[in-house]
Amino acid sequence: MNTGPARGMRDFLPEDVRRRQYVIGVIADVYQKYGFEPLETPAVENIETLQGKYGEEGDRLIFKILKRGEGAETGQADMALRYDLTVPLARVVAEYRAKLPKFFKRYQVQPVWRADRPQKGRFREFYQCDVDAIGSKAPVVEAELCNAVSDVLLRLGFSDFELVINHRRLLTGILNGTGVAPDQHAEALVALDKIDKVGVEGAEKDLIARGFEQATAQRLLGIIGAPPHADWLAWLEQQMPLDDDGRAGVENLREILRLTKQTSAGAHIKVEPSLARGLGYYTGAIFEIKVKDLAGSLGGGGRYDDLVGMFSGEQVPAAGFSLGLERILVVM
Amino acid sequence: MNTGPARGMRDFLPEDVRRRQYVIGVIADVYQKYGFEPLETPAVENIETLQGKYGEEGDRLIFKILKRGEGAETGQADMALRYDLTVPLARVVAEYRAKLPKFFKRYQVQPVWRADRPQKGRFREFYQCDVDAIGSKAPVVEAELCNAVSDVLLRLGFSDFELVINHRRLLTGILNGTGVAPDQHAEALVALDKIDKVGVEGAEKDLIARGFEQATAQRLLGIIGAPPHADWLAWLEQQMPLDDDGRAGVENLREILRLTKQTSAGAHIKVEPSLARGLGYYTGAIFEIKVKDLAGSLGGGGRYDDLVGMFSGEQVPAAGFSLGLERILVVM
Repeated sequence: MNTGPARGMRDFLPEDVRRRQYVIGVIADVYQKYGFEPLETPAVENIETLQGKYGEEGDRLIFKILKRGEGAETGQADMALRYDLTVPLARVVAEYRAKLPKFFKRYQVQPVWRADRPQKGRFREFYQCDVDAIGSKAPVVEAELCNAVSDVLLRLGFSDFELVINHRRLLTGILNGTGVAPDQHAEALVALDKIDKVGVEGAEKDLIARGFEQATAQRLLGIIGAPPHADWLAWLEQQMPLDDDGRAGVENLREILRLTKQTSAGAHIKVEPSLARGLGYYTGAIFEIKVKDLAGSLGGGGRYDDLVGMFSGEQVPAAGFSLGLERILVVM
Repeated sequence: MNTGPARGMRDFLPEDVRRRQYVIGVIADVYQKYGFEPLETPAVENIETLQGKYGEEGDRLIFKILKRGEGAETGQADMALRYDLTVPLARVVAEYRAKLPKFFKRYQVQPVWRADRPQKGRFREFYQCDVDAIGSKAPVVEAELCNAVSDVLLRLGFSDFELVINHRRLLTGILNGTGVAPDQHAEALVALDKIDKVGVEGAEKDLIARGFEQATAQRLLGIIGAPPHADWLAWLEQQMPLDDDGRAGVENLREILRLTKQTSAGAHIKVEPSLARGLGYYTGAIFEIKVKDLAGSLGGGGRYDDLVGMFSGEQVPAAGFSLGLERILVVM
């Protein structure tokens, strides 16, 4: 009989558990000192809670649970395994709005499950360590998230990480200003997000393959794929006029940079024009943690002011940052 | 949109999480002091790992996960959610036998999922706090488990719990000695296990409804349903001759009682002749924790010397004790 764990799943023997518990302990300790409170949600959610939140590819990767009893023969699913900690948080905020403080800061360390094809270093069950603040649009929220995450990484011995930051509204402004039609924005962002993997030339080919005109692709990459500038935001403003979205993005990023300058995040934070983040629900600043020894990121996050409203109808501003426990452990 | 958790599942707001973390912390601390090491296994197991281990009713209550990709349309399941922590432990012991110490003491605090019809105080996701010792048949193992669990309960402020204990081989001996055919033992035990709920008369009716002759039922209940005796084992030996199984059970129980006498378990432990425990895999001593304020038990366990062998072919003795986190919290 096969005695291994299921495909993409792992057993943690005592030494592994102790290492994991140590890292989780540091993360929880830092987040608690910043005033974030613990939350836990069930592994299993109603399928409607999850579907339509993660984009087409995300939906495909959700593990679905077969109905019980008479429903079992139909082969239908009514529930599913948690895919991230953000959508359950939005559901919880919508459900318990009256019981929770108006400004609610929570952390949550729990496993999530994704039916990815397991490959090197990718697992189907992995822990996310999330920290989110609900109820404020102020950039001090993003600054605090960046500070808390930087403190965690410094406490764990990471000294040369980069905290790259960008803005969905700034990206919208740039796309509008370089002549990309609004219904093509999502498509363009997918290509731009890969610049750090495929380079500017690779991204140009990708954009053309996705149906963009070469002139548009080059205009766009002339901005987003430009070589680094000490003050990229100032350089950008000299290159092109920005619309309301673009200007709001620039202003918001400047505030976040100013607010983090004297903190533990200050030495690590940096605007990364091509950062786009895959998930559909972001509406403002977006972040990612990069370290030299790891392709991909240690974690990421951003502002998602519309997600709670998908559950409650009421718009509730929110932003969060998620660290991947396994990625931290791989690098440590 | 429905913003509640799925049926039988729960969200834990900060106050709840803190209470849960406190109790889990005490449990882990005591178990670590007894030398048990932490283990974690994935929430999702191959379906063959779980099926056929929990009896017919257990199999029906397993949450099954739909195949992905091309398999999705077939409505078939290939994986399932963990139903307890004992079967995954047996799988882990079979898989990592060479890496693990020959005598392996582990604790594990993780959720399990059962597709029970949710009712008052019953949930479909709940935490088990398990402590098990692998690799020894010595009764000192059962004694240590009882001591560790008693220490946990005392540290949590439970002062008047009962640790009831019985023995599968003793039950076998009694059933043989009162004329119950071996293939009727399982059926008889189901009825006997309910004496504390339905009384001796209820159990007699139940036995007759299950096809036992009235004379057999009365003989059996004359032993198992007898009023309490200060030394029930001695009384039993005067009532009926016991076969090898019965004598081995008596001797083993006496050893466990002797070994726990001067410990924290000593004031709470007591033989309970009708205790049978539902799960199929027990082979020796069985335990349960009872408190006044709760129908049902705070937890239970026993010896299961054949379970690891179902995975590895090699017989590896084992015994364990499982506490229900939610039940502890309800009573506290």
